Amino acid sequence: MAEHTVTFDIADEPVVVPTGTMLAEAARLAGIDIMQPCGGQGRCGRCAVQVTSGSARSRSAQRLSPEAIEQGFVLACQTVVEGDLTVVVPPQEKVERRLTTDRVAAEIAVPVGYDPHSAQTIRRFSLMLSPPDMADQTDDWSRLETALRQEADIPRLRVSLPLLQRVGAILREGEWQVTAVLDTETWDCERCLPRLVDLIPGRVPHTMPLWGAAIDIGTTTVSLWLVDLITGKVEAQVAEYNGQIARGEDVISRIIYAGKSDDNSREMRELVLGTINELFEKACKRVKASPAEVAKVTISGNSTMMHLLLGIPAENIRLSPFVTAVNQIPTLSAGEVGLDINPEATVDCLPGVASYVGADISAGVLSSGTDDTDAITLFIDVGTNGETVLGSREWLVTCACSAGPAFEGAGVRDGMRATVGAIEEVWVNANTFEPTYRVIGGKQPRGICGSGLISLLGELFLTGIIDKGGNFNVDLDTPRVREGEHGGEYVVAWGDGTEHGRDIAITRVDVDNLLRAKAAIYAGFTVLADSVGIPFETIEQMLVGGSFGKYINIEKAVDIGLLPDMPWDHFQFLGNTSIKGAYLALLDKRSRRRIRDIATRMTYIELSADNTFYDAFMSALFLPHTDLSRFPSVSEAMTTKG
Amino acid sequence: MAEHTVTFDIADEPVVVPTGTMLAEAARLAGIDIMQPCGGQGRCGRCAVQVTSGSARSRSAQRLSPEAIEQGFVLACQTVVEGDLTVVVPPQEKVERRLTTDRVAAEIAVPVGYDPHSAQTIRRFSLMLSPPDMADQTDDWSRLETALRQEADIPRLRVSLPLLQRVGAILREGEWQVTAVLDTETWDCERCLPRLVDLIPGRVPHTMPLWGAAIDIGTTTVSLWLVDLITGKVEAQVAEYNGQIARGEDVISRIIYAGKSDDNSREMRELVLGTINELFEKACKRVKASPAEVAKVTISGNSTMMHLLLGIPAENIRLSPFVTAVNQIPTLSAGEVGLDINPEATVDCLPGVASYVGADISAGVLSSGTDDTDAITLFIDVGTNGETVLGSREWLVTCACSAGPAFEGAGVRDGMRATVGAIEEVWVNANTFEPTYRVIGGKQPRGICGSGLISLLGELFLTGIIDKGGNFNVDLDTPRVREGEHGGEYVVAWGDGTEHGRDIAITRVDVDNLLRAKAAIYAGFTVLADSVGIPFETIEQMLVGGSFGKYINIEKAVDIGLLPDMPWDHFQFLGNTSIKGAYLALLDKRSRRRIRDIATRMTYIELSADNTFYDAFMSALFLPHTDLSRFPSVSEAMTTKG
Repeated sequence: MAEHTVTFDIADEPVVVPTGTMLAEAARLAGIDIMQPCGGQGRCGRCAVQVTSGSARSRSAQRLSPEAIEQGFVLACQTVVEGDLTVVVPPQEKVERRLTTDRVAAEIAVPVGYDPHSAQTIRRFSLMLSPPDMADQTDDWSRLETALRQEADIPRLRVSLPLLQRVGAILREGEWQVTAVLDTETWDCERCLPRLVDLIPGRVPHTMPLWGAAIDIGTTTVSLWLVDLITGKVEAQVAEYNGQIARGEDVISRIIYAGKSDDNSREMRELVLGTINELFEKACKRVKASPAEVAKVTISGNSTMMHLLLGIPAENIRLSPFVTAVNQIPTLSAGEVGLDINPEATVDCLPGVASYVGADISAGVLSSGTDDTDAITLFIDVGTNGETVLGSREWLVTCACSAGPAFEGAGVRDGMRATVGAIEEVWVNANTFEPTYRVIGGKQPRGICGSGLISLLGELFLTGIIDKGGNFNVDLDTPRVREGEHGGEYVVAWGDGTEHGRDIAITRVDVDNLLRAKAAIYAGFTVLADSVGIPFETIEQMLVGGSFGKYINIEKAVDIGLLPDMPWDHFQFLGNTSIKGAYLALLDKRSRRRIRDIATRMTYIELSADNTFYDAFMSALFLPHTDLSRFPSVSEAMTTKG
Repeated sequence: MAEHTVTFDIADEPVVVPTGTMLAEAARLAGIDIMQPCGGQGRCGRCAVQVTSGSARSRSAQRLSPEAIEQGFVLACQTVVEGDLTVVVPPQEKVERRLTTDRVAAEIAVPVGYDPHSAQTIRRFSLMLSPPDMADQTDDWSRLETALRQEADIPRLRVSLPLLQRVGAILREGEWQVTAVLDTETWDCERCLPRLVDLIPGRVPHTMPLWGAAIDIGTTTVSLWLVDLITGKVEAQVAEYNGQIARGEDVISRIIYAGKSDDNSREMRELVLGTINELFEKACKRVKASPAEVAKVTISGNSTMMHLLLGIPAENIRLSPFVTAVNQIPTLSAGEVGLDINPEATVDCLPGVASYVGADISAGVLSSGTDDTDAITLFIDVGTNGETVLGSREWLVTCACSAGPAFEGAGVRDGMRATVGAIEEVWVNANTFEPTYRVIGGKQPRGICGSGLISLLGELFLTGIIDKGGNFNVDLDTPRVREGEHGGEYVVAWGDGTEHGRDIAITRVDVDNLLRAKAAIYAGFTVLADSVGIPFETIEQMLVGGSFGKYINIEKAVDIGLLPDMPWDHFQFLGNTSIKGAYLALLDKRSRRRIRDIATRMTYIELSADNTFYDAFMSALFLPHTDLSRFPSVSEAMTTKG
């Protein structure tokens, strides 16, 4: 096949690639990281580069203006090399690689009465072996097993070959005194022999921490808690953006990107592993430990994140009939997974229920106690997929609604993630229509994050700036409401007060996207309640998980009809319930069993196959809802304000 | 550190190495394979190379003549680089890399009543899964487990991550019809869940073979039997020299070589893996199968071979108090071991007893039935370590005597391995002292192999050419007996009748070496019998294992006092009992359990710590023995012939 030389202006050297190579791939080979937030679908337009000479063929130029096309701009993810090329790569949008808020840290209480001896599967034993001599030529391994039998009544052990290779040297280095770290129970093989996880020369003091980690792989943020398994205490909390973001902002984009080639799949795996391994470094440094000391990890996350982490093809999550390759992942070792910790460390990926109800939701049910209460409880993780669980000790039903990424700031013109510069709460004066807002980090705003959008939408509705259908009242006496490119819009911040000097506004299109998002979530509640035949009024608690949920203003969320109208004391915001569940499962084998029961017990309702969902969705497309009797407190507020 | 350029005459390019690099290592880096039969101890002199210019320092020049040293010859394994060097590498001794006899093939009977359903741990199931749809979104893995539950009453499975990654694609490729290969029991975790070993799209006919392999890793020869686990039949038998030979001819040399560096250890591992993987290729080709179809392997071999295969440091096998790192190796997968077959294939390394009583002996006891008879049995594997077992159903004692490699043709001037050109049997006329001999392959002789040496020694003794102390009677009227460099010698073949044109003779030194070897083995018998307090006469069977043992002439072996003097019908030669044991353990889980019992039951007696061994050895240093009453039939023959 013919080969061509592609010269990128910012690359060290030209690369030679065969005809038909995707430009994005050529860039990767040249060591250039071109952002593909839509996963290389040609939809977002953010991978545009300028071909200044040579021959390339594009199959799509969506999102490129005629002027740009005129100037030679093409989408790197949609353009193949057909001859020698010279390419100018515009400065790439800066990906926020560091979380800039301290929102991730929280005080975590150790479960009451935590006793590592009865609860923890990882155990540490100090052993004194008798050295071999001509009268006792027992092999090293049996000698270790004998000591364990005497010390801990554990008759035999499993061990990996790489650790077995090192046993003899460790025993001699410790002069026959060693500390053995065992996993006494792995989840998928309770009857299996205990497994040697680590063997340390000499005696490790009882007071030394025994490290474990709970991890939540969010589509956006990866969080890691470093835990002393002896005391149960969380000693370090760290979080970072998921390195996969540059290859797709949502799960669908990432599945598409990963599914394109084995290389892509490997890249996605390495990206998230890179993030996790950095977090291990950071957390361990903070407590002055080495990642090699970490003996056990539990991982939570949605089904797509779990598949991509493990290099398991995720394509069928995206394609009808939407099935995962595996929901209950076998216990793995850190070496198999690719974590840069003790390669023998047990890695326990928590169980999911379905393609869009993953381990994060099982973990959320566990940590929220939804499965362990007599009160009928509605649990929701507000986000792209609005996973919802309704139930109690007796029964659990669950569904996921494709709310889209509007609440995560995507699909909204001035939307952004909840980082420094994001407007996170808005109040609008009912008389002057002038806004007041709070910005994360206290500086000039750059955009509006999810909680800000909910708050803003509620205020616009209650002040009559938009009507129940989301239409802007452009006749109001305020310059804030104006005709924009795609209909009415409301200016939250004038350009002279923003970081980038542009107005920050919410448009008609944004409002429609937000309405669809909130309608999908509310319709999910409706379908779940209908499926078990209970009226909304019988719901006794409303638990909101997800780190995003933590910052929602309940009143505003009810105002727009995102959350059901209930007494305030029914609501509870729980923060990242996914990592909390991972933490509980890390500590206590009974919690681990419980989460498996949860995943097995939950009845999954596929909304796209449910014929009541569409009606429920259409009814919820209004502010707050077609059926106002469902929102008595909002009706009252409307009356008051209006 | 300073670096130097070393130029080897036969290398493509010079190499640059730091001061102090061993010349053998520099050669390896230059891609040159320099033989080190003594393992780089500087004892054999076969790695001599000529330094024609530059500065090198040798710590030993054993085996080099003053002339050679004058000419710049040095031992590559004992010489370090201290400046730029030019080195001439003499043609290396050709290592016989191919076994040239067909001695390895034998007709193997399938155990009577072999029933794969009850005996075999590897099982194959044809499964028809229901495809997923919107009404059944079960994940792929659970779908497979459900089918297995229905078909085979197996509720859950273990699976490795690499295989799990492929499950979804395989199910779809087979359009939801698949054939699953499971390991239903691994040795070290009988209670564990069955493990998925292979998943094949579509339906595999019941008549298709299900491949397994039994392997014996001998210090000299590696043998492999390819077995259909359904019928139990051995479908291909292949053997090859162990690729490690060039790095040491005996286990001690290899331990020393491997222990020098991690690189060396890795090299030794790769050498034997190379041999095994070639054997897999060859055997699979013969039956028109792919190595990827092999689902299970059992491996036998001495403890050193097992350690080196698995990259487990073997140093302590060589050093007092002579302990192995591990005798009972956990079940491994082919991927972990490095076998180029199905990476999920179960690899079961059979259990050994001690540093010098390895899995080959446990396997020998199993296949010889020594552990399952009422008759008091003496089992011996004649070879460097003369491993011996005495016992019956009731009890088993074992020892290993360092016989040295004389019976394998090493340490004997004209000794060689039993390949083409080796004199394998000798008869000496009592009147003319002229010999008659048989040569393997029927051509001109090159040397004498072990069975030939035993035969020759017996003849020399009975014809009075040597006396009971091994002294040559140089006064005999024959040119065959003459004074050599180190005392008397006997010429077996004149140079005009040999392949290389040199006389083939046995010298006084050779005889001493052979005497020590046979004395060590016989002394082992004595110590074992004494340890349990039974007289030799009560021994009811004498079983001789090892492929070498098969070719010994019993009468001659008794004549020289190597084997005890018993009625002929007590003797049985069993060939390679090690691979036979591996074969039985491969086929039947009950045999596998039995071999573990054997390894656990055998009482090991360390001869170097036994104070009766030395006396027994000294008494056996004569032909046939100091105590002639132990050899009544030899006494009689001496009377007759003499």
